[in-house]
Amino acid sequence: MSKPLILVTNDDGITAPGIRALVEVASEFGEVVVVAPDKPQSGQGHAITLNNPIRLRKVNIFGDIEAHECSGTPVDCVKLAKKVLYKNREVALCVSGVNHGSNASINIIYSGTMSAAMEASLEGINSIGFSLLDFSHNADFGASKFFARQIIHKILKIGMPDTKLLNVNIPKGSVNEIKGIKVCKQADGIWDEEFQEGTDPRGQKYYWLNGVFLNLDEDPDTDINWLAHQYVTIVPSGHDLTNYKAIEPLQFLSEEI
Amino acid sequence: MSKPLILVTNDDGITAPGIRALVEVASEFGEVVVVAPDKPQSGQGHAITLNNPIRLRKVNIFGDIEAHECSGTPVDCVKLAKKVLYKNREVALCVSGVNHGSNASINIIYSGTMSAAMEASLEGINSIGFSLLDFSHNADFGASKFFARQIIHKILKIGMPDTKLLNVNIPKGSVNEIKGIKVCKQADGIWDEEFQEGTDPRGQKYYWLNGVFLNLDEDPDTDINWLAHQYVTIVPSGHDLTNYKAIEPLQFLSEEI
Repeated sequence: MSKPLILVTNDDGITAPGIRALVEVASEFGEVVVVAPDKPQSGQGHAITLNNPIRLRKVNIFGDIEAHECSGTPVDCVKLAKKVLYKNREVALCVSGVNHGSNASINIIYSGTMSAAMEASLEGINSIGFSLLDFSHNADFGASKFFARQIIHKILKIGMPDTKLLNVNIPKGSVNEIKGIKVCKQADGIWDEEFQEGTDPRGQKYYWLNGVFLNLDEDPDTDINWLAHQYVTIVPSGHDLTNYKAIEPLQFLSEEI
Repeated sequence: MSKPLILVTNDDGITAPGIRALVEVASEFGEVVVVAPDKPQSGQGHAITLNNPIRLRKVNIFGDIEAHECSGTPVDCVKLAKKVLYKNREVALCVSGVNHGSNASINIIYSGTMSAAMEASLEGINSIGFSLLDFSHNADFGASKFFARQIIHKILKIGMPDTKLLNVNIPKGSVNEIKGIKVCKQADGIWDEEFQEGTDPRGQKYYWLNGVFLNLDEDPDTDINWLAHQYVTIVPSGHDLTNYKAIEPLQFLSEEI
């Protein structure tokens, strides 16, 4: 039997340490191909490139593993992998990350890492986004590799019942400091932001985004809460944003003319 | 009683005809302020600007109405409106659009128009994204204005029970060709894409995204289906991407160590 094809991508860019950690782990389970942005693309959400051409360039930075850097967004990378580079191959799994920084709670909607994984899931590919709660470039990906290995192994063996997308977040710290794995829901939360205001060298005013995350969820069975208790969290995710409970109360807006 | 403050934004850029239509309608109901991108930002999804400063510039293009163009994404516009420009005012409503092109079904996740509205909803502001099923710059916004007027009027009067975000799509055509309004769910669908491949003037290969939308939903009570039958559609939307039905089947991934 041929080895399963595993697509690896991220949003921190193809040279980020986090994607190297994920490439190493994925290589233990299948034939790995990498298509990732040629520059950092954090906070790109589900952006796609409509008004400009996109470039792909083959790079040799992961030894024997085929890798392409892409001038577009994380979602563009997945589209090009599926529709151009590997259009005649069956992709068994897409893994995105390991992201330098949390994608728990509402971060999923801003995250290029999770949007890339979501795009693959829309194409019917089982997909997992991995994120480590450490923004630093020199973060320790030891625990991330340990748990990514375990989760990829089980998913390739058992599949992903009733979903195509997992949002996995890993607490900062060593493997021994982590208490376990929880499958749970996305916490409700918000970014409490303030813009840093300044004046540039030409005397023009600018604003620069800054902020802290606030957990608004009182339910303890959420990713934010379990991460705070040193658990790895797995949130099965989708792409249906319909707020079903509001359909009936909003019928006052319906009409036949 | 002072007039309610209504924030208007979009993703096609502050000079697009669609936002002008929405500014005109919103002005009938309150004090309008505009914060919108200084260039087209379609397909930007929930992108935010993290690694660069953002500029704001006051522009005089809507008569007496205060308007600012912003160098950032649609979501950046809403954040700056809420956190800098109008931080001491209560924003009664945010309206985004009118988008030149559909944001029904899965388009909501790629759409800067809907992401801007979603960002406002995260801030607790009742928000509505309006989109017309016509990509052309010279689209007829007559029906869009008619239905936006009606929906804004009811929402300001009655509120938005059980949700903070509405995704409104308007079929192409005149008011008389539209049969009514349906409150329904987001259809499941996908973009069937192919990349146009070419060679640039320097001999470098490029890829340019192109595609057609495919409806995968057999349920008739969806936005895609009602739009095809000439109804305006309203999908109450949210920001929780948890796939709840998969939490139990995925418990094989949980563990205590």
